[in-house]
Amino acid sequence: MIKEIEGGITAAKGFEASACAAGIKYKERTDMAMVFSKAPCTSAGVYTGNVVKAACVLYDKEVTESDSPVHAVVVNAGIANACTGEQGLLACKETAAAASEALSIPADSVLVASTGVIGMQLPVDKLVNGVGVLAATLSEGPKAGDLAAHAIMTTDTVDKQVAVEFTVGGKTAHLGGMCKGSGMIHPKLCTMLGFLTTDCAIAKLLLYKALKEDVQDTFNMVSVDGDTSTNDTLVILANGLAGNETITAEGPDYEAFKEALHRVTMTLARKMAADGEGATALMEVTVKNAVSKASARVLAKSVIGSSLTKAAIFGHDANWGRILCALGYSGETFDPENVTLSFSDGKETIVIFEKGVATDYSEETATKILSAKEVYITADMHMGSEEATAFGCDLSYDYVKINADYRS
Amino acid sequence: MIKEIEGGITAAKGFEASACAAGIKYKERTDMAMVFSKAPCTSAGVYTGNVVKAACVLYDKEVTESDSPVHAVVVNAGIANACTGEQGLLACKETAAAASEALSIPADSVLVASTGVIGMQLPVDKLVNGVGVLAATLSEGPKAGDLAAHAIMTTDTVDKQVAVEFTVGGKTAHLGGMCKGSGMIHPKLCTMLGFLTTDCAIAKLLLYKALKEDVQDTFNMVSVDGDTSTNDTLVILANGLAGNETITAEGPDYEAFKEALHRVTMTLARKMAADGEGATALMEVTVKNAVSKASARVLAKSVIGSSLTKAAIFGHDANWGRILCALGYSGETFDPENVTLSFSDGKETIVIFEKGVATDYSEETATKILSAKEVYITADMHMGSEEATAFGCDLSYDYVKINADYRS
Repeated sequence: MIKEIEGGITAAKGFEASACAAGIKYKERTDMAMVFSKAPCTSAGVYTGNVVKAACVLYDKEVTESDSPVHAVVVNAGIANACTGEQGLLACKETAAAASEALSIPADSVLVASTGVIGMQLPVDKLVNGVGVLAATLSEGPKAGDLAAHAIMTTDTVDKQVAVEFTVGGKTAHLGGMCKGSGMIHPKLCTMLGFLTTDCAIAKLLLYKALKEDVQDTFNMVSVDGDTSTNDTLVILANGLAGNETITAEGPDYEAFKEALHRVTMTLARKMAADGEGATALMEVTVKNAVSKASARVLAKSVIGSSLTKAAIFGHDANWGRILCALGYSGETFDPENVTLSFSDGKETIVIFEKGVATDYSEETATKILSAKEVYITADMHMGSEEATAFGCDLSYDYVKINADYRS
Repeated sequence: MIKEIEGGITAAKGFEASACAAGIKYKERTDMAMVFSKAPCTSAGVYTGNVVKAACVLYDKEVTESDSPVHAVVVNAGIANACTGEQGLLACKETAAAASEALSIPADSVLVASTGVIGMQLPVDKLVNGVGVLAATLSEGPKAGDLAAHAIMTTDTVDKQVAVEFTVGGKTAHLGGMCKGSGMIHPKLCTMLGFLTTDCAIAKLLLYKALKEDVQDTFNMVSVDGDTSTNDTLVILANGLAGNETITAEGPDYEAFKEALHRVTMTLARKMAADGEGATALMEVTVKNAVSKASARVLAKSVIGSSLTKAAIFGHDANWGRILCALGYSGETFDPENVTLSFSDGKETIVIFEKGVATDYSEETATKILSAKEVYITADMHMGSEEATAFGCDLSYDYVKINADYRS
């Protein structure tokens, strides 16, 4: 039984958080966050598939792939620390060193993450000052999680958090998380920045395996604009304070953990899609009865990434030809005559294309459905039994506005 | 010596054209065009790579792949005749039959092409009436070419035509063309709709080979929005009236023809990119010194397709990190530290990123360059000696506006 509970990153036992306004790039708002666990954590991370990787991605990858326990994460918004050369890597090391000193933990137990403009150098002095403030103001509870989730936002309009309670090995465990991401979202491995914490005790390899598998159907199925970031990072920390016997093999306990993880990541992924830059609607594309899971994913992502389909949803226009067109250029083969397309707003569903031609659907009903805050598109390929869902949003004037002048 | 001359589709000897307002979908404008050569033409065509192919694409493919000579092309704008099943194919046949009768030519010597909304059925009676008017009003000269080039436009804001004169086997020959395309432009094989005519005598296989090779570096390198159409069609008709000895093998004559073809297709491709839906600027991305031609093309197309880069150009914002980011997620491998990025407006050039970090460039100069009507981005990979250029445009409010409500 999985139950959604209040909170996010601080929902699991022993995790604290804090936020501060370090003045890195934004004015009059918080822009740094810290997550801390006194108990040492097993960690796992998945990172961007972009060849151009931010300094913090290179840094964190080394830490999460080592056997060292992790105690803290330091995040900043405003500057991405990507394309910053040697100086960028030095900024990671100095930030981690400052956290190590302030929290009395080993330097190699600190993860750092950045999001914002590519190419600018981080002001290390401001980061080091920020770390001092963050360490001094750590606290438990949902309020601290809120503060952290807000501080890591860039063009996000809402914070993204969720937490669940579940039972594992007879013990009650918790898993919560926060993420940020609104533009440059087309994760190849994971989301822009996502942080998950759990008090469940689980071996490192299984933690990594669960995370790696899970993102295929959650964060990896989100696309706001097709731009895979240089900074995509998803990290999970497990401190074992739930007191369950450590999960060391696949079995019912591992399945319970995976289910809880999936509930959290799926919720965060959908929240991210719905808050895509300039979005007025969440757009979900489900491809049913495809020949394989891989094929279903490719088809669904092709539709979710189509600028023309996204603009049509913004205009509440049932221009379904663009959906069929996007399926067609996905690279997958199929017989168009065999595809059934339908639209739904979660309450009402209409079939719009069947047996090679448009059905006799009502444009009025279609427009009503496409005016909902959540629009569901389903393509039934009638070829096999595999399914995948992709998450995105419409393309609006505001997307252009936000991105035509993001730096200033 | 290739010389640009006046005209387009009617520039080559023996080609006539006409246009009419058939009332297919638009009101108060021409929406049908005809191209005709009394002398039988050798033909070649390249078509969309989309699995979902319009009825006219399926129809034309069969004609251009047969040995039958071609005499005429009938084009309509407003309805794409895609996703229209059996009825769609019947519409092609009836249109061709009407042209065959009106022009006293074999039915299998007529090509048909459509562009517009996907999924609606063509009003065949209106098309047949239109064919009658078109056949009766055919004429030679640039004015007729103009009329045809205008009639095939959809969201295009300007017509796209060009013609050249060249020498082949001691004779003066001509090659001209017209194309249309503004949105749903990301040709896998060719452009949305392109028609080329020449009086040069050339064997069918060489005509096809020249066309197929040429599009790799011209129409295939254009992207407005990443959406590969169901209707992409590029057809060339050669009626041999220049009187040159028919080109039947590779050699100087074939090279002269290819050069003329390239001049025409490159000009049309750039015109199409500059007139992308909502575009305020032409954006050219050149990737230099890549390991292979294929790699250079992939890298250049990744940047030209990046919504974030396109929005930054619209905002005249030197957000070069997005360019490096787009190179990074292209799927090609390279060392980011080794890339040199520069911006140019054709007059002034500035290096903006080098040896892994931003140069000390002037933001003022960068903004000035990015405010030009033609913006040139160059990425030097320093890895090999191959080069490719991709053509596109910026992403503006108007792109969203046009596509949020295209059907009405």
